[in-house]
Amino acid sequence: MSDQKHRVVIVGAGFAGLNAARALRKADADVTVVDRSNHHLFQPLLYQVATGGLSPADISAPVRGLLSKNRNTSVVLANVTGIDVTAHTLETTSGEIAYDSLILATGSTHSYFGNDSWAENAPGLKSLDDATAIRRKVLLAFEAAEQAETEEEREALMTFTVIGGGPTGVELAGAIGELARQTLKNDFRNFDPAATRVLLVEAGERILSTYSESLSPKAEKSLSKIGVEVMTGTLVTEITADGITVKQGESSSWIPSKTVLWAAGVQASPLGRMLADSMQSESDSQVVELDRVGRVPVGPDLTVLGHPEIFVLGDLSSYSHQTGTPLRGTADVAAAQGSHAGKAISRRLKGKSPQKPFKFRDLGKLAVIGRSSAVADLKFLRFGGFLAWQFWLFIHVLKLVGYQNRATVLVQWASSYFTRNRSARLITGKLDWDEIAGSRLAQSADSETPGKDAA
Amino acid sequence: MSDQKHRVVIVGAGFAGLNAARALRKADADVTVVDRSNHHLFQPLLYQVATGGLSPADISAPVRGLLSKNRNTSVVLANVTGIDVTAHTLETTSGEIAYDSLILATGSTHSYFGNDSWAENAPGLKSLDDATAIRRKVLLAFEAAEQAETEEEREALMTFTVIGGGPTGVELAGAIGELARQTLKNDFRNFDPAATRVLLVEAGERILSTYSESLSPKAEKSLSKIGVEVMTGTLVTEITADGITVKQGESSSWIPSKTVLWAAGVQASPLGRMLADSMQSESDSQVVELDRVGRVPVGPDLTVLGHPEIFVLGDLSSYSHQTGTPLRGTADVAAAQGSHAGKAISRRLKGKSPQKPFKFRDLGKLAVIGRSSAVADLKFLRFGGFLAWQFWLFIHVLKLVGYQNRATVLVQWASSYFTRNRSARLITGKLDWDEIAGSRLAQSADSETPGKDAA
Repeated sequence: MSDQKHRVVIVGAGFAGLNAARALRKADADVTVVDRSNHHLFQPLLYQVATGGLSPADISAPVRGLLSKNRNTSVVLANVTGIDVTAHTLETTSGEIAYDSLILATGSTHSYFGNDSWAENAPGLKSLDDATAIRRKVLLAFEAAEQAETEEEREALMTFTVIGGGPTGVELAGAIGELARQTLKNDFRNFDPAATRVLLVEAGERILSTYSESLSPKAEKSLSKIGVEVMTGTLVTEITADGITVKQGESSSWIPSKTVLWAAGVQASPLGRMLADSMQSESDSQVVELDRVGRVPVGPDLTVLGHPEIFVLGDLSSYSHQTGTPLRGTADVAAAQGSHAGKAISRRLKGKSPQKPFKFRDLGKLAVIGRSSAVADLKFLRFGGFLAWQFWLFIHVLKLVGYQNRATVLVQWASSYFTRNRSARLITGKLDWDEIAGSRLAQSADSETPGKDAA
Repeated sequence: MSDQKHRVVIVGAGFAGLNAARALRKADADVTVVDRSNHHLFQPLLYQVATGGLSPADISAPVRGLLSKNRNTSVVLANVTGIDVTAHTLETTSGEIAYDSLILATGSTHSYFGNDSWAENAPGLKSLDDATAIRRKVLLAFEAAEQAETEEEREALMTFTVIGGGPTGVELAGAIGELARQTLKNDFRNFDPAATRVLLVEAGERILSTYSESLSPKAEKSLSKIGVEVMTGTLVTEITADGITVKQGESSSWIPSKTVLWAAGVQASPLGRMLADSMQSESDSQVVELDRVGRVPVGPDLTVLGHPEIFVLGDLSSYSHQTGTPLRGTADVAAAQGSHAGKAISRRLKGKSPQKPFKFRDLGKLAVIGRSSAVADLKFLRFGGFLAWQFWLFIHVLKLVGYQNRATVLVQWASSYFTRNRSARLITGKLDWDEIAGSRLAQSADSETPGKDAA
């Protein structure tokens, strides 16, 4: 085994993992990328899939295809179930994988702040499967509304609630508002989709709280134009299949709403906990303390304390050496960290001096609101409206991995912009007919003539 | 109820149903389109979705969107569970629906010739859910092959069998051959995808038996170029999760093959049987005899014997007045019949004389083989190869419903043609890790050090 190359194992093929693999392309190493899905996902546009504006394949690309030219890299479709920092091995659904250098970049998942039972009635948006499930839920609510027999039932079906006023919540609520008011405008005969209510519920004082304060009212105005009601200072205390209970100040109230979506909280992937547990069981190592949302604190070189061979990147890590507060969990931070870690390993293998500490060049933040508005919070510039939207479009299409995706997305968007059509509004999977028919079916069953069942 | 309009109920929003609704757009009638999915599907391209070349949304369009300008038409998402030809009602999952004129156009489904247990191990291709399930199955076989520990296991994983040498089978086998030899060429490290075997098994003497005899060898030659082995005169007698037993003449043999796909037989939708049963239970009506594959014979005006108010169209019907043999079950026949039936009802409502008997203008048949070959069997012309492929591309893109789909499909294809990329090769849904890891996991588990599970 003396001629064995240095083994780099990268867990997660998101922006961080992929960029790390790319930076290692010419390294004299055996690189293994482990991911539990076969595709890289452009998460910032997931809400477009959830509302039928784009297809899953438009915002994703096969990991193998993206790394096929990295001849030193192999891809393993597997789920990581354990880490042993002493033995330098990972436990996975495809057996044990040994590493010399390890890069952990598995991102984040939803957090229901301890109310895990809410997950069933308020799905969140992190994967393509999440997005198609939400798309299905939203579109089926309109179908059931068309068949509803009572006004009460129809109103609950046509009330969509998005919990969480961050960028994802704002984008999702805006897209549902547009779907109802524009795309589906002429599609129903028993109700007017323009009467759809979209509620954006935020516990804090303003939406987009991580953005400059002046942008929040701009965003609220854009949202109200497409029918989104913003409810700030509003705490959700209960979520059922039929609606939510909210608390504003001291008063609680019940809002009937058949479709509730979760965009309120994230927590780091469970790999952070696995790493911390394995380090704790080591006798001679320092203990790592995860932060409040389960992120792993890393040093200026993006490695974990006492383990220069383990890098933790992107949403899974907490890097606060630059500003004192952790860098935000966005694609651009993750991508920059991936490149940095990949280069650091390359340098080590060549015996070069270590890199300078990681430094993120913050170009700013963008959030989109519907078809033609956005807010941009750039380094020296803040703006909203149509210009921000165009800028957002440009940046996102530029960032999309793979030539074909870019072209397709541009065609889809150009066409969607001019026609207000959302051609990907597909309902897939097995349907629950009782749910769709709702009260109509019950009533119809009552009025059936006896003996009809025999037909 | 005296001012109630004539109620036309159309079951099925395929080519027949959609064209019927369109022909009725200006009719003084209440038109209801009932379908159990929310989208119209361009079935001829389903095999492209199954092999990752196109996205589901590229070959489908929401029924509501397609009919939103038909102000006299409403769409009901429901499954039809019974027909009462005496009471003039349909039983559906959304209750009872009454009709004055009825159009049945629910198409066809797979037939396993009585071996329904084969369905589990040899899925067929009729819906988008079928296509994404097959895509998943095919892509997971490659993933598992990358992780296989024994050559035997890898060979079974890399042997793909398509049963049925009609157009669907030919197109599907060709697309898998291309996927393996071109798209995935550089994607794996533990085996060469070019070694993939694709078997096209046909019981009859030649593939494409409904085409002119001279085209079959042309198709075989094109298929062999992309690595498809054609096995004619070969009967399948058993299908399991691990392979198939075939019979050639008197000798039987076992072929290990982890991925078996069914393109061998279709039967009419169960609505034909429901109609026949309801007619039989009528006292004063003639009995309708379904044909061998469950199709409903119709008269020259496309209605069923004794029921001028019931039209049966497309794959669900058997129309043999033109050539003595039933018209084939293709999109162009269905579309023409839909327009004919819609116009017939319009004329009746206006009190005009009935239309001339239905006559199908046959322009010919086309089947595509891989990325750059096809066979065309037109009225006065038969050709194969690249020219036929281009013609096929032109015709199909032209036929795709909706402007946006056309543009997207053209971009996808142009890009796919030049890059041999298939960007839609997504694996979605929950994964079975044991299946992917196969023998690797078993072996790895054996070699684990005791106590590792505690980590």
